[in-house]
Amino acid sequence: MDKLIGRNPVLEALRADRGFDRLLVQRGAEGSVQKIVDSARKRGIAIRFEAKAALDREAGGGAHQGVVAFVSDYRYASPDDMFARARAQGEPPLLVALAGIEDPRNLGAIIRTAEAVGAHGVVIPHRRAVSVNETVAKTSAGAAEHMAVARVSNLSQALRRLKDAGLWIAALDPDGENCFERDMTGPLALTVGGEGGGPGRLVRETCDFAVSVPMYGRTASLNASSAAAVALYEIRRQRGQRSAGGIF
Amino acid sequence: MDKLIGRNPVLEALRADRGFDRLLVQRGAEGSVQKIVDSARKRGIAIRFEAKAALDREAGGGAHQGVVAFVSDYRYASPDDMFARARAQGEPPLLVALAGIEDPRNLGAIIRTAEAVGAHGVVIPHRRAVSVNETVAKTSAGAAEHMAVARVSNLSQALRRLKDAGLWIAALDPDGENCFERDMTGPLALTVGGEGGGPGRLVRETCDFAVSVPMYGRTASLNASSAAAVALYEIRRQRGQRSAGGIF
Repeated sequence: MDKLIGRNPVLEALRADRGFDRLLVQRGAEGSVQKIVDSARKRGIAIRFEAKAALDREAGGGAHQGVVAFVSDYRYASPDDMFARARAQGEPPLLVALAGIEDPRNLGAIIRTAEAVGAHGVVIPHRRAVSVNETVAKTSAGAAEHMAVARVSNLSQALRRLKDAGLWIAALDPDGENCFERDMTGPLALTVGGEGGGPGRLVRETCDFAVSVPMYGRTASLNASSAAAVALYEIRRQRGQRSAGGIF
Repeated sequence: MDKLIGRNPVLEALRADRGFDRLLVQRGAEGSVQKIVDSARKRGIAIRFEAKAALDREAGGGAHQGVVAFVSDYRYASPDDMFARARAQGEPPLLVALAGIEDPRNLGAIIRTAEAVGAHGVVIPHRRAVSVNETVAKTSAGAAEHMAVARVSNLSQALRRLKDAGLWIAALDPDGENCFERDMTGPLALTVGGEGGGPGRLVRETCDFAVSVPMYGRTASLNASSAAAVALYEIRRQRGQRSAGGIF
């Protein structure tokens, strides 16, 4: 069972038709909470109206904005699901692989950007990285509900399998080629590394090439989620300009 | 007096030649701390070696990585400083104006990106927004030291003055034109709004036009710092492609 805190995560879970155990709503809450209550009623979800203190307790200090929901566990996807999405959209696959992002806010922001840019999936390692927890659901503003997120026990192995499936594996790394000068229109998995530096050695060795966001000042690198946003939108821009030779 | 916590902020403050009152170093700290100590010694800065507990106390729970520095107050810049920077680099001014960014991590990330992309300044309002505090210094990874940041008491007024100085004022707003299809090569101040939505009504009315980062999924908007990163790098990309008619 997962807990969702705040309006956006709850609203997007409703839209994605995720299984709800129950919904707690703060008595007297206004604004978009009414929309949430209406939508939950239509779906026959059990709603309990509670005092603010009860929601404060459940949210453990998080900003709940009047709603907390108990929902079925987050459904992780498989790489096959992601290929199916790409195929359905007639696009060369674009995946994001996260190598050791430990800050849940960074993970949430990257999932949100990946969903917004039209990527087909996000791959995260099981260990030494955050899972799609409450903070991730919240900072992704609900995007995690619509994004295929796969958890793998060995990221290098998973990347090798993606390579066998015909994808290019790129590392986002401060030492890579300028991403604005590199063709990224083919089927691609972009590996985004630990905060600050690029992905670790093992993962990097699996990559076919490395790209960077060019730095014009004295700063050595961008925040991981900002760098991912720039690179992903550049991929999208390139793909819009010329029709890419996809594998599907 | 400001306090800087962690290696990057302290290192960048040394590089930027900021005034140091004293530097606390954890006894036995290794790695890049030695570089910091050497650099501080060269500059004749008072160094005190302390037990970890003393630094923990000063950092108030923040990750200090063995160094805490007490430095002169952050030196805010003026729009004139920013114009001077643009002129010195022979580029049309590119400024970032922040309208109500309340999350210091977002402010830090945006300052970091603005520095990295080669923008000439960041304008922030005095009230109802964060200042360049410890968290900002830390999440900007020290970029705040090299960036001209101006604090203004009335943002709309400041934007109007920038407009009088010949800049285009653009709002970054989910309802704006696709930023990849809009010419942004001229002298420009990009206004980045409150988390989630764009800037407020008053500020928006001052803007000449609004641009957005296109959304290809179901997510309504990006995180403010991710959106700013995408738009700023697109401006930079456009400027690299054709020589812009600057005002300087």
